[in-house]
Amino acid sequence: MGVGSTLYRTWLQYNEVGENGFRGMYRELLGRIVVAGESSGAFAAALRELELGAKSMLGINPEFMNAAPSSGSYLRIGIKTGEASSGDRAVSAWGKEDEAFSLKRFSTDDSIRLELTGGSSSGVLYGVFFLLRAIALGMNPQELAAEETPVNRLRMINQWDNADGSIERGYAGNSIFYEGGEIVQDTSRIRDYARMLASVGINAISINNVNVHEIETRFITEEGLPEVARVADVFREYGIALFLSINFAAPLVIGGVGTADPLDAEVRQWWAETANRIYRHIPDFGGFVVKADSEHRPGPFAYGRDHADGANMLAEALEPHGGLVIWRCFVYNCMQDWRDRSTDRARAAYDHFKPLDGKFRDNVLLQIKNGPMDFQVREPVSPLFGAMTRTNQVLEFQVTQEYTGQQRHLCYLVPQWKQVLDFDTHAVTSGGEVKNIVEGSLFGMKISGVAAVSNIGNDECWTGHPLAQANLYGYGRLIWNPDLSAEEIAEEWARLTFGNQPVVIDKVLHMLMASWSIYESYTSPLGVGWMVVPHYHYGPDVDGYEYSRWGTYHFADRDGIGVDRTVASGTGYTAQYFSPNREMYDSLENCPDELLLFFHHVPYSHRLHSGSTVIQHIYDTHFAGAEAAEGLGMVWSVLKDRVDAERFEAVEARLAEQAEHAKHWRDVINTYFYRKSGVPDEQGRQIY
Amino acid sequence: MGVGSTLYRTWLQYNEVGENGFRGMYRELLGRIVVAGESSGAFAAALRELELGAKSMLGINPEFMNAAPSSGSYLRIGIKTGEASSGDRAVSAWGKEDEAFSLKRFSTDDSIRLELTGGSSSGVLYGVFFLLRAIALGMNPQELAAEETPVNRLRMINQWDNADGSIERGYAGNSIFYEGGEIVQDTSRIRDYARMLASVGINAISINNVNVHEIETRFITEEGLPEVARVADVFREYGIALFLSINFAAPLVIGGVGTADPLDAEVRQWWAETANRIYRHIPDFGGFVVKADSEHRPGPFAYGRDHADGANMLAEALEPHGGLVIWRCFVYNCMQDWRDRSTDRARAAYDHFKPLDGKFRDNVLLQIKNGPMDFQVREPVSPLFGAMTRTNQVLEFQVTQEYTGQQRHLCYLVPQWKQVLDFDTHAVTSGGEVKNIVEGSLFGMKISGVAAVSNIGNDECWTGHPLAQANLYGYGRLIWNPDLSAEEIAEEWARLTFGNQPVVIDKVLHMLMASWSIYESYTSPLGVGWMVVPHYHYGPDVDGYEYSRWGTYHFADRDGIGVDRTVASGTGYTAQYFSPNREMYDSLENCPDELLLFFHHVPYSHRLHSGSTVIQHIYDTHFAGAEAAEGLGMVWSVLKDRVDAERFEAVEARLAEQAEHAKHWRDVINTYFYRKSGVPDEQGRQIY
Repeated sequence: MGVGSTLYRTWLQYNEVGENGFRGMYRELLGRIVVAGESSGAFAAALRELELGAKSMLGINPEFMNAAPSSGSYLRIGIKTGEASSGDRAVSAWGKEDEAFSLKRFSTDDSIRLELTGGSSSGVLYGVFFLLRAIALGMNPQELAAEETPVNRLRMINQWDNADGSIERGYAGNSIFYEGGEIVQDTSRIRDYARMLASVGINAISINNVNVHEIETRFITEEGLPEVARVADVFREYGIALFLSINFAAPLVIGGVGTADPLDAEVRQWWAETANRIYRHIPDFGGFVVKADSEHRPGPFAYGRDHADGANMLAEALEPHGGLVIWRCFVYNCMQDWRDRSTDRARAAYDHFKPLDGKFRDNVLLQIKNGPMDFQVREPVSPLFGAMTRTNQVLEFQVTQEYTGQQRHLCYLVPQWKQVLDFDTHAVTSGGEVKNIVEGSLFGMKISGVAAVSNIGNDECWTGHPLAQANLYGYGRLIWNPDLSAEEIAEEWARLTFGNQPVVIDKVLHMLMASWSIYESYTSPLGVGWMVVPHYHYGPDVDGYEYSRWGTYHFADRDGIGVDRTVASGTGYTAQYFSPNREMYDSLENCPDELLLFFHHVPYSHRLHSGSTVIQHIYDTHFAGAEAAEGLGMVWSVLKDRVDAERFEAVEARLAEQAEHAKHWRDVINTYFYRKSGVPDEQGRQIY
Repeated sequence: MGVGSTLYRTWLQYNEVGENGFRGMYRELLGRIVVAGESSGAFAAALRELELGAKSMLGINPEFMNAAPSSGSYLRIGIKTGEASSGDRAVSAWGKEDEAFSLKRFSTDDSIRLELTGGSSSGVLYGVFFLLRAIALGMNPQELAAEETPVNRLRMINQWDNADGSIERGYAGNSIFYEGGEIVQDTSRIRDYARMLASVGINAISINNVNVHEIETRFITEEGLPEVARVADVFREYGIALFLSINFAAPLVIGGVGTADPLDAEVRQWWAETANRIYRHIPDFGGFVVKADSEHRPGPFAYGRDHADGANMLAEALEPHGGLVIWRCFVYNCMQDWRDRSTDRARAAYDHFKPLDGKFRDNVLLQIKNGPMDFQVREPVSPLFGAMTRTNQVLEFQVTQEYTGQQRHLCYLVPQWKQVLDFDTHAVTSGGEVKNIVEGSLFGMKISGVAAVSNIGNDECWTGHPLAQANLYGYGRLIWNPDLSAEEIAEEWARLTFGNQPVVIDKVLHMLMASWSIYESYTSPLGVGWMVVPHYHYGPDVDGYEYSRWGTYHFADRDGIGVDRTVASGTGYTAQYFSPNREMYDSLENCPDELLLFFHHVPYSHRLHSGSTVIQHIYDTHFAGAEAAEGLGMVWSVLKDRVDAERFEAVEARLAEQAEHAKHWRDVINTYFYRKSGVPDEQGRQIY
């Protein structure tokens, strides 16, 4: 029995394991645990977790010992001995090998001996979570063996939490970090979160919104740092480095320096002193996350400097301490004139950053959103991946469902992320997939990885929708190993969360795997995106962003729809891709259906590869999508009495809301296009 | 010299009067003031005002005396002697005769004697403001004479201020009443406001938002009332009665009664005790303003009761103390399904309240918005006026420019209000104008009048846009005497505010008088309304309310636009009007152009009475409107150096924003309809 309700315990349920789960063998194996070496930090957390898991799943209190017993089963845990890694401090702190673990089995007829060896205390912790997961999944101990090294070095979560307790784009209650302008006194829920994150391999977290407001700007002052350090202490225990989002204008706003010009000596001095101050309080501080010159945030542009000037100045300050600067590429003109069709927001990140390739210091990473726009249900992959070969990079995903149903709709996002990671940029002859780029070795990056915006808050179930827990779980698992399939991850999560009943697993797996496609089908069609209520980003508003400053258009008129981004007649965005992607997207014939309207303006009568016209596709997918959304609820209803009432009802309520809201989506979208095109539905279904 | 900046002083500038303003004669006249009788309350305020005005405009300190001097000029002020009014206490407190004043002139060759007589101290105060206005306007004292009685008894302002300091639909800063959940300690700005209101004849104010939140619900408790009483004290000095908006669920929420059912004895008892409590603290408390069963506010429906049950229950509690219940008729289904075309929000107020005519107690007034929707730039007049002949009524206007440019655009609303007041309901053979209905005598109402939502906040100029002061001024003046023309009022305001320079008056008058029509022309066409960004109500969003729960549609498709509210084929709303209005609106031929799309769905090719097609009208008005908006700035620029820099620049900045935003309106609306209709502009102007 874990802590709290089944909703709260997420995938760390640690339910009692029965005999068909090899209870006897695991009781024997975990009855005695040999601890080799000193167990501090994450190693200590690992042992506590093992104790909790053994007690909860197996009903035993393991005996911890220093030396191996002469006979019988036992588990031995230790850290691999070897030379410490060397070189650049900022970068070496993120050595993958330190986070690797191996699990070796030595069986005899009547005993099993397991040896869990971590590259460091973090590796031990990941190994223990692996082992506990194996037990919960009902894996045969006779088949246990593993040799795992995380594929990505930086595996990060970004909290968009504000000091006032709100969460930007949060759909699961208020912040677990802040209340009323201050960091919470009771950090126990933060600790539970750190444990959840570590269980899926996360090793870095930024704890405040990238839009840094007044109070958070002061986190890096002598007054603010002791409070931040309390949080860093919690995450340190779980092998997670703490980062802060900073305000680029801090020297001006709180430093008493008359400027924030990155080339100004006083500014540089102020940041150097600030770095010294931070590391006095938090010796292993991860570094800064920076949103600069983006959506009205201050940045180097005000002083005629570029992003490299800005990032390098901060990097120089952090470098002596081994800190990183994670500089976001979400930079575009958010005061665009909708009447000007030559400006294309999709081009912006590439246009801003590509020319700066090679100009950034070794401890700077550029954080690039998965697509060129902003976490839409469907976008092409950002053309920056592959285009910058001499710059450290972090791929940014969004676990919080800002544009994908806000955790009121079910949308399992791992399949989408998987497509991004598997996308071949063709930057090299072969092996140019995004996952190989962000993994770092392809272009020899010093440090790289993946970050994502969290979806948690202080809701009982953490994520608003109980099934949205799968996205947080899946994010961690996928970036640990991008070769896991979305199904494998979904199944793992479902088993850990709901237990190993086949019917439950089968239904939940089906629901999760179908959900992204369902959500896409009743919302914005064929990659066009943005048909949501401005600001809130929930619910349909086809023209909501059509005349806006945000650079987010569909150009639908009575004849057709879509954005011409071709070289010949459009914005030329397609040229930002490598061949043959550029030709594929540029060509009306070869462009994939699901991205057609992202790249081309076509008449409603245009025939898709699917054989359907664009207008009929819109009608068909929206009718089918709303029906499928209703179907999710029917599938779930089968699980009544197979899932505890608390979780069953919570999910049931969300699915009912989704089904109703999907009909609203269907009818608004269909009505909009019917009124505009005048083309009747071939099947004569009800359109208003 | 008045108090504060020229922005702050609004129309009470009291600038020095020169010789061509009859300075000498007025100095003589106001040098000696004979005060007849005891001067307390508003009489005292009147004398203070006179002293201030004399000093500021004429540079003299009047000598106040008890008896008339034997010779020379002087002003005599007193209250008319006569029997006190009798009858129903709640109603008699609002006697118009008490508020009347007369100004009589007795001239000789070398002196002027003026006698100002008020029906009560309030009448004196209004008379003094009349006199000071006459001086400021440069009126010849030899022509001074007046005999005025306010046409409407209740002349009210509704503040939509919240205890947290915010103002619902406020566009002029924060509340002057509240800060951080409490009534402000320093009430001096409230006093300045009371003075402004009294200067234009307002005699009632509700000081909190009709949406009553948690803190404001407690204003009527033993803890809250001493604070409210402090504010009542301020307004009392200026003859203004204080009202509170109340929470219908108060017995349940703060009263410890298990219900708010209006027929429940305990509830009635609780309200009776509450009334006793209120009047112990505020003996002349005006009464309650109630928004019930409207936009999710609690009300009698929850208990299967109707509005009469709810209002009468409150009225019974207030009756012994002479208090009024002002019950708002803004009741409609705000959870409407846009797919259901049979429900028509325009019908709602009539459908809800008409059947209850005659069922309300004598101290209940129904507050009816000017139109059936919600303060759009153009709506027909509410059909409730004239339809209810046995119920006290208050007409509600909105001075704050929620849908009319939010004080960032210039929109002088007096011409609109004037149209409403002059609208002939045809409820009687002749004389059925709305002004005659709300004035009360036509149907023998016990008490009636006009209320409006205020446009002020703590901005230096009170109203965000300095020229928006004209709306507050104009509202007061118009409801004092609905036969004043919009031009007369505008000219008065301009002279008082900017002085008597002809070129300034001419330009300002031109700008004000043109502004409503300009705003209408570049926003939503032909009475259709609602093409604004949802919730904010600023800026264009043609489909913003098209698929919404608020019952606010235009039904534009590729062929046509408009709402069919006819009897034969539409919602039948037209039948709520008396003949011949009903036939006029019902007929496509006779319906006035400016309301065509409110009543009819027509093809874009439909030809208006103006000769233009609907689509060409849209293009033409939007091009012309944006051009005219730019023209306002050009007119104003002529006044540089003729208006003090502070006001000149404040207005200049607003007009520049308006000009820019008007182009955005123009282009969004034109583009929307061009993309939908496919009809090109006859003049080939740029549409996107």
